[in-house]
Amino acid sequence: MRAHETSLRIRYQETDNMGVVYYGNYFTWFEVARTEYFRSLGLIYRDLEAKGFYLMVAAASCRYKSPAKYDDMVTVKSSIPEIKNSSLKFEYKLSVDGRLIATGDSVHVFTNRSGHPVRMPGDVRKALT
Amino acid sequence: MRAHETSLRIRYQETDNMGVVYYGNYFTWFEVARTEYFRSLGLIYRDLEAKGFYLMVAAASCRYKSPAKYDDMVTVKSSIPEIKNSSLKFEYKLSVDGRLIATGDSVHVFTNRSGHPVRMPGDVRKALT
Amino acid sequence: MRAHETSLRIRYQETDNMGVVYYGNYFTWFEVARTEYFRSLGLIYRDLEAKGFYLMVAAASCRYKSPAKYDDMVTVKSSIPEIKNSSLKFEYKLSVDGRLIATGDSVHVFTNRSGHPVRMPGDVRKALT
Amino acid sequence: MRAHETSLRIRYQETDNMGVVYYGNYFTWFEVARTEYFRSLGLIYRDLEAKGFYLMVAAASCRYKSPAKYDDMVTVKSSIPEIKNSSLKFEYKLSVDGRLIATGDSVHVFTNRSGHPVRMPGDVRKALT
Repeated sequence: MRAHETSLRIRYQETDNMGVVYYGNYFTWFEVARTEYFRSLGLIYRDLEAKGFYLMVAAASCRYKSPAKYDDMVTVKSSIPEIKNSSLKFEYKLSVDGRLIATGDSVHVFTNRSGHPVRMPGDVRKALT
Repeated sequence: MRAHETSLRIRYQETDNMGVVYYGNYFTWFEVARTEYFRSLGLIYRDLEAKGFYLMVAAASCRYKSPAKYDDMVTVKSSIPEIKNSSLKFEYKLSVDGRLIATGDSVHVFTNRSGHPVRMPGDVRKALT
Repeated sequence: MRAHETSLRIRYQETDNMGVVYYGNYFTWFEVARTEYFRSLGLIYRDLEAKGFYLMVAAASCRYKSPAKYDDMVTVKSSIPEIKNSSLKFEYKLSVDGRLIATGDSVHVFTNRSGHPVRMPGDVRKALT
Repeated sequence: MRAHETSLRIRYQETDNMGVVYYGNYFTWFEVARTEYFRSLGLIYRDLEAKGFYLMVAAASCRYKSPAKYDDMVTVKSSIPEIKNSSLKFEYKLSVDGRLIATGDSVHVFTNRSGHPVRMPGDVRKALT
C-alpha cells in the first residue's frame, strides 16, 4: 500500500520549557496523520465511530531524532505495514525541511462502543488493501 | 459560601517556548479546582454526569498577572459568587508562594446529555447553599 | 484594518469526555489564528522572538455558543480592534459551516526577554496600521 | 534501586471523545512520575536545568491494557532499570484500583543547553546508585 503524507505547522501550545516540542505531542501528530491517511482512502474516521466502530490504541512509540521547534512545518509520512483480522499497525516518519526529526508507530484494535474487539469493518479492509 | 483551595504542581507539559505556563492551560487548572471544590461539598462531578447532568461551560476568562513556571506549586482559591436556576459562576484566584499569578472566572450551565439546559439538580443546589 | 481568516480541522486530542472540544483548547486556536494573521501581514512571530520581542498574554476570554466536534472544520475570523503603545487586542469569531460556535478576545503586551513591557517594534506597528 | 510511586487524579482535560484518556496524555503522567521519582531522591529537575543540564527524551513507548477514565486515581510505579554514561531508562506501570491500565518506558539523554550529550552530572549518578 502506498504511504501517505500530511503537513502541519507546529503550534506554540505544543512547545515546552526546553524551547522544543513536548515529547507527548508527537502522538497528537500521529493521530492527525492517521485521520488524513484514512480520509485519503475515502474513510472518515468520525463516520466509523458513528457506525459504532472504534480504533482503540493498543500500543504507541516514538523515537526522537532531532528537535522540532515552534512554527516549523512538519511532514508526517504514514504507512500501514500490518493488517490483521481486527487490528492494524501504523508507522510514521516525521521530518522538517527534509531533516528526519522522529519515527514512530502505533497499533490499533477495532472495537465496538463498549470496547470489545470486533473484526475490521469490510469497507475499511477493502479500502486498505 | 466559603471559598475552597486546591494546590497543584506545574507540569513540564504545561510550559511553553517562553519558559512559562501556556496561557490556555490555566483553564485546565480552573477545571481541577472546580472538581475539587465540588468534591469538598460531597458532590462528585463524575457521578452527576452518570446521572445525566452536565456542566457545560458558557464563558471563561483569565487575567494573567505574573508568570508561572515549571515545578511551581500553584494554589487555586475558588468561590461561587453566583447561583441561578440552571447556571452558576466560579471565580478563581491563583497564587504561587503568596504571589498572585492570575485571576479568572467561568460560567456553567446545567444541561442534559443532549446539551439542553435543565434546572440545577436539587442535591447540587442544597450542597451549594 | 481588515479581518483575517484561518481554518483548522478539530483533532481527536482536542475533544473531551462530553464528546465536544474541551473549553481550554479554544485558546490554542486563538493562538493559531494570531500567528497566521501576523504571517498574512508579513510578520513572523518566531522572528520577533528571535529579535527579543515577546507577545505576553495579559488577558483572554471565550464565550461558548454551540458545541464543536471532532473532525469539524473551524473557521477563525480575527481582528485587532485596539492598538496601544506596547499592547494590542485581538478579537475572534469561530464558526463551523457558517454556525457561530464561539467568540473570544485576548490582550497582549510586548515585552523583552525578561518580561518587561517595551514599545511595540516599529515594523509591527507599521504592518498593523 | 527501589521503585517509586506517584498518584494523580485524571483530569477532564485529559479525556477524549471516546470517554477515556487520550493516548498521548499518558506520556505527561510519565513525566510527572519521573519528576517525583527524582524529587524523592533529593534531585530537583528544575535545578538541574538551572545548572545547564537537560534530560532530553530519546525514545518513549506505551502499551495500553485497560481504559482509564475521568476522575480515576492513577498510581504510577516507576523504576530505572538502566543507567549509562550519559543516558538512563525509566519504566512505568500504571494502575487504577489495583487494575493494570498501562506499561511504558522512556529513554533520556543528558545534554547541555545546546542539546549536545554530556556525562550524567555526578550528584545525579550518586543519588541514582
